[in-house]
Amino acid sequence: MSADSTFPAAPPRIRVVLVGTQHPGNIGSTARAMKTMGLSRLALVAPERYPHPDAEALAAGADDVLAAAAMHGDLATAIADCQLVYGCTARSRRIALDEYTPRIAATRLLAASREGGEVALVFGRERTGLTNEELQLCHAAVHIPANPEYSSLNLAQAVQVLAYELRMAMLEDAAADVVEGHREPPASHAQLESFFSQLAETLDAIDFHKGRTPDAAMHKLRRIFLRAALDEREVRILRGVLADAQRMARLAADRGKA
Amino acid sequence: MSADSTFPAAPPRIRVVLVGTQHPGNIGSTARAMKTMGLSRLALVAPERYPHPDAEALAAGADDVLAAAAMHGDLATAIADCQLVYGCTARSRRIALDEYTPRIAATRLLAASREGGEVALVFGRERTGLTNEELQLCHAAVHIPANPEYSSLNLAQAVQVLAYELRMAMLEDAAADVVEGHREPPASHAQLESFFSQLAETLDAIDFHKGRTPDAAMHKLRRIFLRAALDEREVRILRGVLADAQRMARLAADRGKA
Repeated sequence: MSADSTFPAAPPRIRVVLVGTQHPGNIGSTARAMKTMGLSRLALVAPERYPHPDAEALAAGADDVLAAAAMHGDLATAIADCQLVYGCTARSRRIALDEYTPRIAATRLLAASREGGEVALVFGRERTGLTNEELQLCHAAVHIPANPEYSSLNLAQAVQVLAYELRMAMLEDAAADVVEGHREPPASHAQLESFFSQLAETLDAIDFHKGRTPDAAMHKLRRIFLRAALDEREVRILRGVLADAQRMARLAADRGKA
Repeated sequence: MSADSTFPAAPPRIRVVLVGTQHPGNIGSTARAMKTMGLSRLALVAPERYPHPDAEALAAGADDVLAAAAMHGDLATAIADCQLVYGCTARSRRIALDEYTPRIAATRLLAASREGGEVALVFGRERTGLTNEELQLCHAAVHIPANPEYSSLNLAQAVQVLAYELRMAMLEDAAADVVEGHREPPASHAQLESFFSQLAETLDAIDFHKGRTPDAAMHKLRRIFLRAALDEREVRILRGVLADAQRMARLAADRGKA
């Protein structure tokens, strides 16, 4: 599959917000990082030096993103119209916020944006990040897993990683739309457990275990299907396959007794 | 799970190779990007200006990675001892190379590195990338899915994205080790296609399609199992389940005729 060619036509309503940026070059690099991944909505909250030639120099062709950037005096104003706001942060904060990896955060932000809401991804100052007050305006935190001995990503690099994960999530969404025309909700825990129960019954019915302990095989099969992140329709299809296998097993058993 | 705390003790034997870098600042930013994700092996092939103060300035604490960087006159020398070499590239090249996304490439590079081999990830010049001759030294290409209208990631940003995917793959590995004690290689394309053939045969044998066109169901099932990123052992387990279902179907058919 040519990944680029399935690039969705409409950019998502996802806003990147930079708070108190100290180096204008990072604003330019951020614009470039955003544009490479199809993001276009930038907001700047009290940047220390902006406009500035370093920003244009590092934007390298993403000057349209810079030109369209909104300017605000504080974070609350910048995200006033947003339904979902995630703040990027280093670890160990005194604020109790749910924390997501970039991959999970991207999926959640995209889902909210597809429902029509404005969503925002907020990045703090290069040296000090976001203040506790600013984090309290966020619904959750995003943390990029990093080397515990050296976890300080450059600001624009952090934007690039999140923008990349957003693009990967968008591509998966676009592929699902092309194939199916709409998106199914993820299967719930209860639906998955029902599926696993039926899988266990089916394995018994087709004599898969052949006297061995069933636990190891079921554990591995669970891992496969949990990793596949099944949606409701996919669980239905798989259960249909199991049902037909169970039917065959019953037929074989009944006919064997006849 | 605290992702950082499961950071594996031994950094992987994965080498980042920069060929013909034009801006020394990008070498420093590369070192920083590598170190944030736990990579330490850097090789420079004929950088245009190096050493240079811009490199140290942008390395920002990753100067140990710079100091340990190997210098080479050409790419062949830089990767002479490597078992697996992937070259990062923009699309549409005349060289016929398998092409992977960063996520798949990271999984494959890590698997090869765990088997004890030296592996390398090669990045080209800022403006012109890698030459066709340099790409021919690579086993496969890596392409970062990007905005087709603006796909030019900054060199160090491209390194950051790949390093991040390597780290995500390492974390998954570390978690799998905790659970299972060792890791299987990913299933090859041929192994997956054999599995899908057997799946199609099994669906016919258990009369899953019931007169409907088989294509839509097979397509959905393919997506489920491709998304699951199966390893070799998992394919074997699933094929064992299919074999037993096929056996039941044959038994039912034979007994029906008896």
